[in-house]
Amino acid sequence: MISYKEISPSEFFYQHRELAGFSNPSRALYSAVRELVENALDACDAYGIFPEVLVRLKEAYPSPSDIKEFELYVRDNGIGMPPDKLPNALGKVFYGSKFVQKQTRGTFGLGGTMSILYGQITTNKPLRVWSSTGSGEAHYFEMMIDVQKNRPIILKHKKVESQWKGTAIKINLVGDYVRSSQKIKEYFRRLALFTPYADLIFEDPNGEVLAFRRTVERMPNPPREVLPHPKGVDAELLRRVIKSSRRSKTLLSVLMRNFQRMGRKTALSVLQLAGIDPNTPPSKVDLEQIRRLADAIKQYDRFLPPDSSCLSPLGKELIEEGIRSELNPPFVYAVTRKPTSYEGYPFIVEAAAIADRAPGIKLYRYANRIPLLYDEKSDVVWKILTEDIDLKRYRVGEDEPLIILTHVCSTKVPYKTMGKEYIADIPEVEKELKLALQQVLRKYSEYVGRKMKMETQKKRKNIYAKYLPLIAKFAAMLSDQKVPDVSALINLVEDVDLE
Amino acid sequence: MISYKEISPSEFFYQHRELAGFSNPSRALYSAVRELVENALDACDAYGIFPEVLVRLKEAYPSPSDIKEFELYVRDNGIGMPPDKLPNALGKVFYGSKFVQKQTRGTFGLGGTMSILYGQITTNKPLRVWSSTGSGEAHYFEMMIDVQKNRPIILKHKKVESQWKGTAIKINLVGDYVRSSQKIKEYFRRLALFTPYADLIFEDPNGEVLAFRRTVERMPNPPREVLPHPKGVDAELLRRVIKSSRRSKTLLSVLMRNFQRMGRKTALSVLQLAGIDPNTPPSKVDLEQIRRLADAIKQYDRFLPPDSSCLSPLGKELIEEGIRSELNPPFVYAVTRKPTSYEGYPFIVEAAAIADRAPGIKLYRYANRIPLLYDEKSDVVWKILTEDIDLKRYRVGEDEPLIILTHVCSTKVPYKTMGKEYIADIPEVEKELKLALQQVLRKYSEYVGRKMKMETQKKRKNIYAKYLPLIAKFAAMLSDQKVPDVSALINLVEDVDLE
Repeated sequence: MISYKEISPSEFFYQHRELAGFSNPSRALYSAVRELVENALDACDAYGIFPEVLVRLKEAYPSPSDIKEFELYVRDNGIGMPPDKLPNALGKVFYGSKFVQKQTRGTFGLGGTMSILYGQITTNKPLRVWSSTGSGEAHYFEMMIDVQKNRPIILKHKKVESQWKGTAIKINLVGDYVRSSQKIKEYFRRLALFTPYADLIFEDPNGEVLAFRRTVERMPNPPREVLPHPKGVDAELLRRVIKSSRRSKTLLSVLMRNFQRMGRKTALSVLQLAGIDPNTPPSKVDLEQIRRLADAIKQYDRFLPPDSSCLSPLGKELIEEGIRSELNPPFVYAVTRKPTSYEGYPFIVEAAAIADRAPGIKLYRYANRIPLLYDEKSDVVWKILTEDIDLKRYRVGEDEPLIILTHVCSTKVPYKTMGKEYIADIPEVEKELKLALQQVLRKYSEYVGRKMKMETQKKRKNIYAKYLPLIAKFAAMLSDQKVPDVSALINLVEDVDLE
Repeated sequence: MISYKEISPSEFFYQHRELAGFSNPSRALYSAVRELVENALDACDAYGIFPEVLVRLKEAYPSPSDIKEFELYVRDNGIGMPPDKLPNALGKVFYGSKFVQKQTRGTFGLGGTMSILYGQITTNKPLRVWSSTGSGEAHYFEMMIDVQKNRPIILKHKKVESQWKGTAIKINLVGDYVRSSQKIKEYFRRLALFTPYADLIFEDPNGEVLAFRRTVERMPNPPREVLPHPKGVDAELLRRVIKSSRRSKTLLSVLMRNFQRMGRKTALSVLQLAGIDPNTPPSKVDLEQIRRLADAIKQYDRFLPPDSSCLSPLGKELIEEGIRSELNPPFVYAVTRKPTSYEGYPFIVEAAAIADRAPGIKLYRYANRIPLLYDEKSDVVWKILTEDIDLKRYRVGEDEPLIILTHVCSTKVPYKTMGKEYIADIPEVEKELKLALQQVLRKYSEYVGRKMKMETQKKRKNIYAKYLPLIAKFAAMLSDQKVPDVSALINLVEDVDLE
């Protein structure tokens, strides 16, 4: 007797939490911290608010074991969550505000809820959350998740008058800080590097405080929501858009209203290609026509590229300023490439080369402004640096004191996993990353060249400074002359390029 | 104004189909074939039926483009699907028969439905499926998926009298066979290698037929469903098990009835460790006690290892027989390790070393009897072979004509992704794989040693055969004797070990 059953999304991720990055106590601690911090930042900078995020992690009870219960507190000064939406936003898998065509850190509508779910299943303790949208009232909830039904269970709800605005979340969860402290601290360092306009504080269970103050007083323009681009269209999306149109009286109007880069001329061309009368009422469009229309859209090659106002790269200047403030390196050079797209999704690649002080090449990967610290060797950037680019041509040796930084921002970062660990090798993205890396490596190579030349000249000057006076003295002795002053000659060495 | 919304699981995977292995037309074609074939095999061998699986892939319409519409037909002779369950099993994400503690190829309750979903969104054509459980009736459905609501839409349903038993599925989907044909054919070859008791036929769009006949007349024992092992327990599972218990009057009885390796003595010890009265009625157990009980179970270290009757390794003999029939190699050696577990999930590792005829080391990875062809370098086996084992110590050179085969079977194969591409580096699994690989490599090394010795002896014999007669002749000439017959001496060379 085969037992068939349905499971809810929360049940699925309860059983397969490793797919979302919650595989073991040390990794789960890292994931809970990063998911909640990324939600906190999304609630700020997308709305023009300079983020102030406090993260406090401490032991729930003293325990000699490495694997033990922690209390994690994350507070932000963002836009808050309305009380009618908050329970579902945190207590339901696949519910949230991230399902729009806009660059956000959160991607799958999963991470925040997973952190809470993980805390609940390991400790059976409820989530405590305070939030205010700046309405004058702050709301407090104590909540658990009904894992089997994928819905929140509100244990307590209070509201108080408050001038505060933002969200504060507190969960208990079992974790292993000994095995994840390095990664968690590195996460904050790299996050601060790429979010120089944010105040970030991390207080760890040992009492150690990592504080990163805001070092720039401006933010990039926030991303804006846009309509889908035709190149991302398939028959399902078309069917849906056509069937749910209320305001449009014709198919022509449906297309123009629901897609970007779909002006009147373009829409007419596409409909002609599909052999469909533009004035067809939406309700009269059949499946066969939808299919032809999807094919026509795929064939049509004169759409303008996707609107990139849904993206928000950090920008060359902010990248370099942030790096200078944080690392004070002898050399840094960043590029921001032009917008392009893959499969209808716009994206922008940024990269930087940073001369480090310690030897060894380090790779700092970012996507939608969040640092990616896991599965480095599976990432497309690793593939590019080990297979597509010959680092030696850029004077990069095996132990080069060099940090290579990459950033991909998109409405759909091509993550291979729901744990957002690394980026897939999509051809368009790989190509852009390669070009960006070549640009910054070229500049790094020039810097190394200049540095080598300066060192050569310095050495040469030292040699002259050492021997010229002797030569002058001996020459003078031999010819019975007064010893000339050679200091002018020595200084001349700097200006003369003897090679 | 932030728009919050909920999306269904099918909507989520519609938007993120790359997470399930449907990233582009060539990969999607591969994934649809493999998912449907794996479901077909699961419907057979788990129930003692020798599988007969036919796969037919053909162009839907002639088209000059590589990316075009295909018709995919997969038929099996398995146990079929009951008509009241079939629509949901194929038309609803997260519904199925795979959510049990038993080794199955299908893992996430996703793959079959994803194939149908992908077909629908690229062609807008319905699924056609015939199925019979051997009741004397066969049922025919034409179905689509309501992607937004995650439920099937039945367009047609007919039933006919039939003596047939099994399932046949036909979908239309857009794919790129030019770019995936190599992988798809290799998939079938490797599948046949590890399923020697199955008849597999693949007819491709070019009319090429790959047919693999059954070469052995026995199958391993099918896996049986088992209760969860305590080591996999957390507070959520405990809470659920306790709250939903109907027959048990005491907490002691709840534990004994719902977990394996939980006999009376063990259950009493665990409850004592948690400080809970064994006779507590389930309804009276509070959250705090559940928490203490979860902790006690985690602490208790005297559980018997997990029951491995839920697993079904192929077994050393069947592995070697299948390989001999298929590849006829000069050498093959397989091992099946003893059952062990990670995080409460039992698993068994098998491995084989096969001397190939063509140079170059090939890695054949399997999990729950299915071949894994993607992301080789991200797999834990690759890590072991490149970092943990020094192949040269086993006489394995860079271009060694060697096939290394690994198989992990478990109630929960630790896949890193829902596309079942590769296995994560879970310590217990990594350790077992390493030991298995060392075992088979040691035997391979002995084979290479024998081979080298035989070649050395053969060379030596050739030299003697060449020169001994000459020496005999000249010696005879010098001493005026008759030329002796030296053939007996030459043959002696084989037996003498001169080193």
